[in-house]
Amino acid sequence: MTLIDRLSSAAPDLCFYGLAPPKLGTDPARLAAIVEAQTARLQQLAPDALVIYDLQDESDRQAGPRPFPFLPTIPPTEYAYQALQAVSIPKIVYRCVARDTPESLSRWMSAPAPDGVVSPRLAVLVGAPTNRAPSSLALADAYGVARPFANDWWIGGIAIAERHARRGDEHERLVQKTAAGCRFFVTQAVYDAAATKSLLSDYARALRQSGRAPVPIIFTFSPCGSPTTLKLLKWLGIAFPRWLENELLDARDILDTSLRLCRETWRDVLGFARAKGLPVGLNVESISIRKEEVEASAALFTALRAELREG
Amino acid sequence: MTLIDRLSSAAPDLCFYGLAPPKLGTDPARLAAIVEAQTARLQQLAPDALVIYDLQDESDRQAGPRPFPFLPTIPPTEYAYQALQAVSIPKIVYRCVARDTPESLSRWMSAPAPDGVVSPRLAVLVGAPTNRAPSSLALADAYGVARPFANDWWIGGIAIAERHARRGDEHERLVQKTAAGCRFFVTQAVYDAAATKSLLSDYARALRQSGRAPVPIIFTFSPCGSPTTLKLLKWLGIAFPRWLENELLDARDILDTSLRLCRETWRDVLGFARAKGLPVGLNVESISIRKEEVEASAALFTALRAELREG
Repeated sequence: MTLIDRLSSAAPDLCFYGLAPPKLGTDPARLAAIVEAQTARLQQLAPDALVIYDLQDESDRQAGPRPFPFLPTIPPTEYAYQALQAVSIPKIVYRCVARDTPESLSRWMSAPAPDGVVSPRLAVLVGAPTNRAPSSLALADAYGVARPFANDWWIGGIAIAERHARRGDEHERLVQKTAAGCRFFVTQAVYDAAATKSLLSDYARALRQSGRAPVPIIFTFSPCGSPTTLKLLKWLGIAFPRWLENELLDARDILDTSLRLCRETWRDVLGFARAKGLPVGLNVESISIRKEEVEASAALFTALRAELREG
Repeated sequence: MTLIDRLSSAAPDLCFYGLAPPKLGTDPARLAAIVEAQTARLQQLAPDALVIYDLQDESDRQAGPRPFPFLPTIPPTEYAYQALQAVSIPKIVYRCVARDTPESLSRWMSAPAPDGVVSPRLAVLVGAPTNRAPSSLALADAYGVARPFANDWWIGGIAIAERHARRGDEHERLVQKTAAGCRFFVTQAVYDAAATKSLLSDYARALRQSGRAPVPIIFTFSPCGSPTTLKLLKWLGIAFPRWLENELLDARDILDTSLRLCRETWRDVLGFARAKGLPVGLNVESISIRKEEVEASAALFTALRAELREG
């Protein structure tokens, strides 16, 4: 079965691995070393797809300063298809449409597929991080631009349980995005099992009431290896229940504790999604460049995939 | 060991059963039947103590109408020590001090213990449900009134995880109430495991930082047998995670589902409290007068007690 076949099936049970491209202007020798290490890791882990993020500045997100400075990265498409050309795993490229115009997005989507890349390609379209952020193309309009390319592109969206906790309407947004052309969703890093289950519960109810079929939801997990990483994840909008944040901050080994908590959270969320008959998948991301956190993301990937296969 | 010995120990693991007195003016034959049924049930369940609530009108609590009309009840002390005199289980009487003056509370506490009741008696002092509610005696002042009676009365307070979720300072309130004379806490009905764990986590941290010893926290569970009971529990300030509320509303058998969810919640909270070294206990309440819900509270008591003894 191809990735698309599995994404279209009732039990996709996919396992993705996610990373951000290196910073623009990375020294060529350093870049080559990063690419080599990532290629080796990806070949060893053999995820069903590789997710390449499109980092935004997001400094409109909130008043507090960003815990790490933002530096622009190599464009995700370029990194996925050129730098990581040797990685034959399907790629899912994120695209922040807030920086696009209808023309630039259309041009990007109509560019021919790189050699050896089968159609349809996969992308996740992402809107501006906040309403206050400047945006030349609204996400809703981007789906309209993407629609004529539905044969060449398999488009996904993001699902945010934290938004559901605040506003209670994220499940409706998933239904609307699906109607607009989204064929799968990827969440932010999940540390709040209850908020995630609440989104799934309302989503399953909305589908039942309208007789619609669910699309796969891919749950993202991200190791947390230091108080600074915790601060960054929170700054990015990831919710941590107070008790879980305390567990991390008080842990003798924060990284190891985060892996244990991710496993417990995944077990809880996976069991709930299965009981609701929702098609699911997994995405383990490595957002840090610290060696231990990168290695931990590989260990987490293996552990959560085992849970998915057994659960 | 007496109840007080166990409340003072590092592992009290107590199991209480809670109920509200019948309405004032209940027909004498009906009242006798209620007392007889409750006496039989209590003798069968053999809880470590019987909690008698002091219902307040609480219509200041929120804008929405109360799902059931409020009717004043037989005074808790009278019900505990006269009507249920034949029940030889220790009683814990709730007292809403908002209706007291310093004199009336002092008078109540200095009244001689009823025949056969050993000293110290136990009470839980409760403040006004909201800041807007009229109150002739503030809770903080009530502790001052109670202080001289510390040999005759073992005073408890209430712990509200929902308040912690909103304000993040309930753990400080527990520490302050303990300094003011509280020697145990009873929670509201627990349906939100995460909020409860967050309160315990912050409480354990505060104790560790200050070198103070914990006092027992008694976790209350309450079966929910109908959408109307759910509405009442929510109106009383009990938080239900959205997914859990959906589970109840969509359940083929709401009562049975609520028992399952209470068991899961208790297992989660109990495991967490044990890991933090906090002394705990259990209180199962029966707030409905529907026969199935009353019977369910007895079944829940037995199931949760088994969990406590094994866990």
